[in-house]
Amino acid sequence: MPTSLDLPAVTVLGLGPMGRSLAAAFLAAGVRTTVWNRTPGRDRELTEQGAVSAATAEEAVAAGELIVVSVVNYDAADAILRRDDVTRALKGRTVVNLTADTPRRARDTADWAAAHGIGYLDGAIMTATPSIGTPEAVFLHSGPRDLFAQYRPVLEVLGGTHTHLGEDVGRAATFDIALLDLFWTAMAGYAHAVAIARAEGVTARELAPFAQGIGAILPPLFQQFAEDADSGTYSGEINPITSAASTMSHVVEVAESHGIDAGVMRAVEGMARRVIGLGHGTDGFIRVADMLTRR
Amino acid sequence: MPTSLDLPAVTVLGLGPMGRSLAAAFLAAGVRTTVWNRTPGRDRELTEQGAVSAATAEEAVAAGELIVVSVVNYDAADAILRRDDVTRALKGRTVVNLTADTPRRARDTADWAAAHGIGYLDGAIMTATPSIGTPEAVFLHSGPRDLFAQYRPVLEVLGGTHTHLGEDVGRAATFDIALLDLFWTAMAGYAHAVAIARAEGVTARELAPFAQGIGAILPPLFQQFAEDADSGTYSGEINPITSAASTMSHVVEVAESHGIDAGVMRAVEGMARRVIGLGHGTDGFIRVADMLTRR
Ligand SMILES: NC(=O)c1ccc[n+]([C@@H]2O[C@H](COP(=O)([O-])OP(=O)(O)OC[C@H]3O[C@@H](n4cnc5c(N)ncnc54)[C@H](OP(=O)(O)O)[C@@H]3O)[C@@H](O)[C@H]2O)c1
Ligand SMILES: NC(=O)c1ccc[n+]([C@@H]2O[C@H](COP(=O)([O-])OP(=O)(O)OC[C@H]3O[C@@H](n4cnc5c(N)ncnc54)[C@H](OP(=O)(O)O)[C@@H]3O)[C@@H](O)[C@H]2O)c1
Repeated sequence: MPTSLDLPAVTVLGLGPMGRSLAAAFLAAGVRTTVWNRTPGRDRELTEQGAVSAATAEEAVAAGELIVVSVVNYDAADAILRRDDVTRALKGRTVVNLTADTPRRARDTADWAAAHGIGYLDGAIMTATPSIGTPEAVFLHSGPRDLFAQYRPVLEVLGGTHTHLGEDVGRAATFDIALLDLFWTAMAGYAHAVAIARAEGVTARELAPFAQGIGAILPPLFQQFAEDADSGTYSGEINPITSAASTMSHVVEVAESHGIDAGVMRAVEGMARRVIGLGHGTDGFIRVADMLTRR
Repeated sequence: MPTSLDLPAVTVLGLGPMGRSLAAAFLAAGVRTTVWNRTPGRDRELTEQGAVSAATAEEAVAAGELIVVSVVNYDAADAILRRDDVTRALKGRTVVNLTADTPRRARDTADWAAAHGIGYLDGAIMTATPSIGTPEAVFLHSGPRDLFAQYRPVLEVLGGTHTHLGEDVGRAATFDIALLDLFWTAMAGYAHAVAIARAEGVTARELAPFAQGIGAILPPLFQQFAEDADSGTYSGEINPITSAASTMSHVVEVAESHGIDAGVMRAVEGMARRVIGLGHGTDGFIRVADMLTRR
């Protein structure tokens, strides 16, 4: 077992699929790693790889300098961290909370940590478990810059890219939520496209190469629309939102003619129609972002 | 002016941005091209490039062997094609209708064409006007295979890829609708993500590189989910739909806490919750496609 003497000892709290992947990556890099999970027995493979198994969360915390938390949400993280004995054990240590939740919860947890003398970084993992320990992993972090600098070397053994988004501790969760919004909405569009195709006798495999073609044109459009959104130009010269709305109503019509729920596209079309109603029919679709945030 | 003696004379009906791009590409390849548009005056640049300007639609039709139609929708196409004098002029010629609409309208137009001795191919253009005449253009076609083979050479001067999807004339429109469903739903997810980010003090430009990262992981997932959907396996081992639904509710919560309409994500989450309610909570999200089409 190689050991990495320069890197601090790490504790991983939460051994779901993600917690186990994180712990395995620390162990593979020779980091001294202690693990704990609410339900016992999840650490078998990890102890074979050299992990120390702690009987309680406070014992686990006491064994590590950096405490990595990966549980389902902040209710679960609170249930573990905000018990007196655990909170006491955390004093003087640093928590990196890689659990997904809202920016508000992240800020609330940072306040709680500050009040108890606990260092606090908030993070988000944007890629699935198989990416951990590989160059594909994407980690976002926010919180005190010096704390991030201090623990960056040990976090980097998790692989991939680690981006510090700023000192506002809510930023990692903000990016996480926004990107998951994009991801799941796009996946819903895909599932719905498959349903429409099927109803018309086209298989998902037949549609897939063309769906991949649509996927490939999205990233440059995201960049272009970001420029439009930030500069407030919203040019609809190539594709005015009136034309997009008309396309959307065709999608709704075809779906519903087959008895397929079109609630998502109805809501999308509704946003486009509201933009048109507000007098911006010649603008591009990204004007929707503006309409959604206006007061 | 180069002329391409091997290629049939073409007529383009409809000179919106797309019709003008199509006509310009035919002219650039030396194809004899006659143009007509309901509102006069749209053909100025094209006639400078060598297009013949027709005074009426029937005159335009009489000048071409292949009639390319590109107008806003099939109501507009019908308004042009289904007038007695135009229908008479079309007899013995072939129409390629590159107008976007529903599969039902495409099939209906094919029936009408057959009843009047008119060859009929239905098509869809999946890329924007700047792509026309370049390798980036994507054209989908459906209808009689022999007609497509006959006119493929002249259609290929429009650039890009031309895929014949089958003899069922509704297939081009089916792929078109399904792919536009995916495209606009994904764009709605992006616009909404930008709105959430803004409400939390993050600019669209800051979010964009990570949004592009999400865009990049979509195409391989589309392929994998297509295999799942067609084989009916729906494995949720890496990401069960229960976990996706929980993420979705976080997105709704954050959006609404800022007064941002979350109707799209509410509809997306609703689909996920219905799948869970039907007893498939451990399946992957693409099970939604199945739920949408079940009777
Ligand atoms: N899986 C991925 O690919 C992926 C990707 C990116 C981000 N993430 C994020 O990583 C985090 C962990 O995800 P996961 O995939 O490992 O599985 P998960 O199902 O989200 O979380 C499972 C973990 O949460 C614990 N837990 C749940 N409720 C608890 C409570 N009340 N008290 C204490 N512990 C509790 C579970 O303990 P028990 O074993 O005792 O139930 C288990 O350790 C989540 O925030 C997720 O969004 C995951
Ligand atoms: N633009 C793109 O990037 C793009 C990309 C892919 C597919 N498409 C598809 O290509 C087709 C044409 O699009 P477009 O961008 O050129 O603009 P458009 O606004 O969709 O269509 C404009 C054309 O439709 C004609 N038109 C409308 N109503 C009519 C009626 N009742 N009778 C006769 N003609 C009528 C207009 O004639 P007037 O000039 O007389 O109004 C004009 O020629 C559409 O189906 C569109 O979905 C476009």
